Amino acid sequence: MSQGIDFSCPLPHPANGVITLAHGGGGSVMHRLLEDCFLPAFHNPLLEQELDATPITIGGTQLAFTTDSFVVRPLFFPGGNIGSLAVYGTVNDLAMQGARPLYLSAAFVLEEGLPLEMVQRVVRAMAEAAHETGVTIATGDTKVIERARGEELIINTAGIGVIESPWGLGPQAVRSGDAIIVSGDLGRHGIAVMAVREGLEFEQSIDSDLAPLAEPVLRLLYQGIELHCLRDLTRGGLASALNELAVKSGYTFHIEEDLVPVREEVRGACEVLGLDPLYVANEGRFVAFLPDAHVSCALDLLTKAMPGTGPACIGHVLPERKSWVSIETAIGATRVLDMLSGEQLPRIC
Amino acid sequence: MSQGIDFSCPLPHPANGVITLAHGGGGSVMHRLLEDCFLPAFHNPLLEQELDATPITIGGTQLAFTTDSFVVRPLFFPGGNIGSLAVYGTVNDLAMQGARPLYLSAAFVLEEGLPLEMVQRVVRAMAEAAHETGVTIATGDTKVIERARGEELIINTAGIGVIESPWGLGPQAVRSGDAIIVSGDLGRHGIAVMAVREGLEFEQSIDSDLAPLAEPVLRLLYQGIELHCLRDLTRGGLASALNELAVKSGYTFHIEEDLVPVREEVRGACEVLGLDPLYVANEGRFVAFLPDAHVSCALDLLTKAMPGTGPACIGHVLPERKSWVSIETAIGATRVLDMLSGEQLPRIC
Repeated sequence: MSQGIDFSCPLPHPANGVITLAHGGGGSVMHRLLEDCFLPAFHNPLLEQELDATPITIGGTQLAFTTDSFVVRPLFFPGGNIGSLAVYGTVNDLAMQGARPLYLSAAFVLEEGLPLEMVQRVVRAMAEAAHETGVTIATGDTKVIERARGEELIINTAGIGVIESPWGLGPQAVRSGDAIIVSGDLGRHGIAVMAVREGLEFEQSIDSDLAPLAEPVLRLLYQGIELHCLRDLTRGGLASALNELAVKSGYTFHIEEDLVPVREEVRGACEVLGLDPLYVANEGRFVAFLPDAHVSCALDLLTKAMPGTGPACIGHVLPERKSWVSIETAIGATRVLDMLSGEQLPRIC
Repeated sequence: MSQGIDFSCPLPHPANGVITLAHGGGGSVMHRLLEDCFLPAFHNPLLEQELDATPITIGGTQLAFTTDSFVVRPLFFPGGNIGSLAVYGTVNDLAMQGARPLYLSAAFVLEEGLPLEMVQRVVRAMAEAAHETGVTIATGDTKVIERARGEELIINTAGIGVIESPWGLGPQAVRSGDAIIVSGDLGRHGIAVMAVREGLEFEQSIDSDLAPLAEPVLRLLYQGIELHCLRDLTRGGLASALNELAVKSGYTFHIEEDLVPVREEVRGACEVLGLDPLYVANEGRFVAFLPDAHVSCALDLLTKAMPGTGPACIGHVLPERKSWVSIETAIGATRVLDMLSGEQLPRIC
């Protein structure tokens, strides 16, 4: 009805106004959903910190509180399953705040037709993972939804821990000159899950890196390592985690691609699949920011706590405050390392 | 291959070895799943109490911890929506333990294709409900799953509160002679949701009874009402809640059908649909066990705290220890009131 020229695009944008898989991918599309929808509505300083676990103080005790829903398919993958993932994932979120995990909730959404035997295997894996990490599953819930996808099983775990770090961990504590270390080789979880989903076979089978991180982190803290900030490298991988922290801290981070530990078989699989291991999800890896002087001691402790993972120092925080990540590539060029936009590997956590 | 006579049933039981909708219905099938699968695996005294919220002590403070996933369809119903339900539901679970709700987590599982506008409406309703009940949504999570059912939205909320009751509430505290009161008229939530789902129209529209219960409960506690046990009347309704508590306490409960408050329009809808209001789910109602001497004061306080709901004393705990519920029906006969077996109304919470 307008009499002027209509400059709007005549083709609807596919993502216009509806949820897309990218909204769950851990990249910039997901962050926009959080920042445009969730954060303004819930508007409170606790949530706005966007930490892996939120510090709350009750009765004078500093606690950490976190939640995570797990929708991974297939339910079982090399190196783990949705049950162990649901326990370790939440334990790890608490650990990233320097907290000792104490209690977990476990809420199940089961699809009609799901074999009971499958539920039992998942529940047993959760019980073993809880025992291993010293957490008690204190409360639970079960809901059943009508059949649609087939063998759908969704688990939510929320977790409570006691913060053991004497100072607040987070991007606000990152300092110019801090070393940036990763706790081990990257990309195995994403590649392991994708391999099963797509029916891929590699020369060497690749197991998920799924592992509990509370004990290694607490070991660092108890040994007096001055950790400033921790972040686990799940959806969106190392690149997205570093970008989030660069924006929150305001600093420029500089890393060297050659220093990032990636196993040969993962690098090979990524090449075949056209993926960048820096964006692939992990479920037992974190990045830590700490003073240079503490790096060698931290790497020693991590090597002992998580044998075979190969932790490494991959770069530093620069004094410039540009809120971005620069990377020196293998061929010696320096470029900006972007956040994942949509998603590289869907539903791997 | 057996040479003897095979007495086993030649027709497979439909529920044999797979999850059915009844496993989520709040009745005996669901309880068998908990008791055969979840409780033995997680095996711990906290979970085995099967309370609405679990008491945990951290740093000398008595907290309550609970979790609930919400899968209600339709997402919007008369008197509420999945967002307000997700907040009130968890607030109410904390209240049943005599706890003041403090912090909630909010985890969303969104289906690809879900309109963003719908997510925004739900999130706004959650924010309003959180504001109203004085809880802070401290941590969150968002996952996206592939399109299958259409407009699927699942919310999990876990909650932490501080226990304000000077003694432990629960079936173990129920005493012979205790009065049994319900906080208001029953059955409106289940009927309201079912009406939308099935496209039913009643002469008088029926709104869900969805309401936050923490304030009424705390008002009773602060006024010195000696509450022994509270239970909210969600899946499985009053009959299932009473049966659970009769088994856990060991006592015989006796109630009179004529005393149970059910609005005329709900009674009419139940008659048309062939449902018993005692089994229909509520989302803003609870049953309380307390000394006879405190009943009239408690009913006064509840009437003031929740105007228009019509709380009532419906029966008593008998000295016999038979772990069952007897009911004097409207025509004067006495019979055993069973637990719901499978489910009467699916997915209403």
